[in-house]
Amino acid sequence: MTNTLKTSYQKTPYKLGGNGTRNIGVLTEALQNIDNNLESDIYGSGPIIEDFETKIAKILGKQSAVFFPSGTMAQQIALRIWADRKENQLVAYHPLSHLEIHEQDGLKELQQITPILLGTANRLVTIDDIKDLREPVASVLIELPQREIGGQLPSFEELEEISEYCHEQGISLHLDGARLWEITPFYQKSAEEICALFDSVYVSFYKGIGGIAGAILAGSDDFVQEAKIWKRRYGGDLISLYPYILSADYYFEKRIGKMAEYFEAAKGLAERFNSCSGVKTVPEVPVSNMFHVYFEKSADEVGTILTKIQDETGVGISGYLQEKSADVCAFEVSIGDAYAEIPVEVLDVVFKQLEVGSPCQN
Amino acid sequence: MTNTLKTSYQKTPYKLGGNGTRNIGVLTEALQNIDNNLESDIYGSGPIIEDFETKIAKILGKQSAVFFPSGTMAQQIALRIWADRKENQLVAYHPLSHLEIHEQDGLKELQQITPILLGTANRLVTIDDIKDLREPVASVLIELPQREIGGQLPSFEELEEISEYCHEQGISLHLDGARLWEITPFYQKSAEEICALFDSVYVSFYKGIGGIAGAILAGSDDFVQEAKIWKRRYGGDLISLYPYILSADYYFEKRIGKMAEYFEAAKGLAERFNSCSGVKTVPEVPVSNMFHVYFEKSADEVGTILTKIQDETGVGISGYLQEKSADVCAFEVSIGDAYAEIPVEVLDVVFKQLEVGSPCQN
Repeated sequence: MTNTLKTSYQKTPYKLGGNGTRNIGVLTEALQNIDNNLESDIYGSGPIIEDFETKIAKILGKQSAVFFPSGTMAQQIALRIWADRKENQLVAYHPLSHLEIHEQDGLKELQQITPILLGTANRLVTIDDIKDLREPVASVLIELPQREIGGQLPSFEELEEISEYCHEQGISLHLDGARLWEITPFYQKSAEEICALFDSVYVSFYKGIGGIAGAILAGSDDFVQEAKIWKRRYGGDLISLYPYILSADYYFEKRIGKMAEYFEAAKGLAERFNSCSGVKTVPEVPVSNMFHVYFEKSADEVGTILTKIQDETGVGISGYLQEKSADVCAFEVSIGDAYAEIPVEVLDVVFKQLEVGSPCQN
Repeated sequence: MTNTLKTSYQKTPYKLGGNGTRNIGVLTEALQNIDNNLESDIYGSGPIIEDFETKIAKILGKQSAVFFPSGTMAQQIALRIWADRKENQLVAYHPLSHLEIHEQDGLKELQQITPILLGTANRLVTIDDIKDLREPVASVLIELPQREIGGQLPSFEELEEISEYCHEQGISLHLDGARLWEITPFYQKSAEEICALFDSVYVSFYKGIGGIAGAILAGSDDFVQEAKIWKRRYGGDLISLYPYILSADYYFEKRIGKMAEYFEAAKGLAERFNSCSGVKTVPEVPVSNMFHVYFEKSADEVGTILTKIQDETGVGISGYLQEKSADVCAFEVSIGDAYAEIPVEVLDVVFKQLEVGSPCQN
């Protein structure tokens, strides 16, 4: 069933989520106006990498920034630096943090850092979770939005409280900002205003921005200098990172102004899902470009319904379904450029069919 | 002085070493015949990455291979796997191994692996150095050719002895094959025949091959499976590695057949240097495409001479000089495509001037 759904999804000309197929054209488009004589960055030096680091540091309101091939590498390193400075191998984060569930325990295996899981998996971390910590921690990592629960956000006031409390307690506050750009419209704050609450910040260039890969880690000058040493230790200080940097910069310029459009589209699309019986989104009203869609039926049954709709309408809804229980399944949507390409009347047909074939109807 | 030499080098239309300027054109050339619709690899899966891994595994005569963004990451991981299997945190390698001098102690800091330095810095590791080890080690790393001493090689017979001895002793033998392709003409052996002596092998695609970045780690199926888990831990399992893979494959096909030409050219060029008084190469007769050039005068004096020759002939000899002592300095040459582009009569002028301006003449 999963394979059929996936195949069906791959064949659809339209998609609800994303910025189009991740193919070689994404790279060639980014390179089309670059002079072939432009020289490569060399082991972290040279205008291509230094100019981009300076540009993003400024946008994030931090002294300095360093480009990394991946966020996995960038964040482990940030937490290691805070652990070293506090001489404390404890970090506190959400139970579904990327570091906890997607990195094969790299933080523990490579850095011997022990995470304390804050709160419970199905909700956001709160200021009280942090106040309730029984042991001193070197750092707290906050992910905005919290991806694995649909991309939820605390209020900005609660973030301010968390920041203030951590600073009072001497706890370094790190932002997992994999989707930072995507939350600025909800908070009605600039990236800089959000990052001002954090000591260190990681941002990604291949989620909402739609680049190829790559991340920036930003903070104070001395923090970034230390991060560069660790980047070499990890084998992330490649002789040339320009394929990622040039595309990060190109797609940043192309899409950074569209985050409000994606946010509005996400709210509209979530409303459509929520109007179908047996279907609900988490969060109910999105606070970024993303949300999760839950169905009150088995993955097998929903897979059949979605495959049929995809085949008939040409709109890719999802290529997979995650089994939440025997009779609940879900998938994730992140709005990018692809959504606006779907004619409204085609979308109307999709949701008409989803209502008729709704998992709750018999 | 160094700056003048570097600037002068950068301006020359011809170069003794390398495969041309590392600019964006290197990437666009590699992509020119690739279909824009070709889909990206995704976190280590998909034909682009899997096909290349299979291809290189076969060429190296190993069961399996995994593509890494860097050799630094690949080699630390190889040594960790051997350390785990032997429950022994010791590795033995040359005092000037890349892991010892170019990785900010990543192996020690991330893996808590302790190196034992074999022999002395200015010569190759011998079978006796390994037999003289006073403690059992999990693995021995051999770099072929030994880059930091000009790219020297043991005889193939000694390599066979080392391999046999390590296997008898239960020591895993790892090949730092950053320049493996480049030594096949000297040994008159295939990459597979050389790799057969080793349990695990790392090869690079941006030295003689002239790609953008990237490495392959090869070994048995179970070894590579474990390496993939570590690759994720290190943050090397990028969503897309195709810019490096496609260019690695393109330049591999373009240059793998030219290694004998580079080797012959290196021998000829070394002979020209050695014919100048006060100049000698290490090794005297190259065994790969590379060698070091030593001058018996200060870096300042030699810099002035080289800058003048570069400015007058348009041939880039070197952009830097390493001070070996107050009156000895050196640089490295690795022959690639650039050398064959220099007209012989221009090269004659270069060496005529080098002889006249020779560091030993007054």
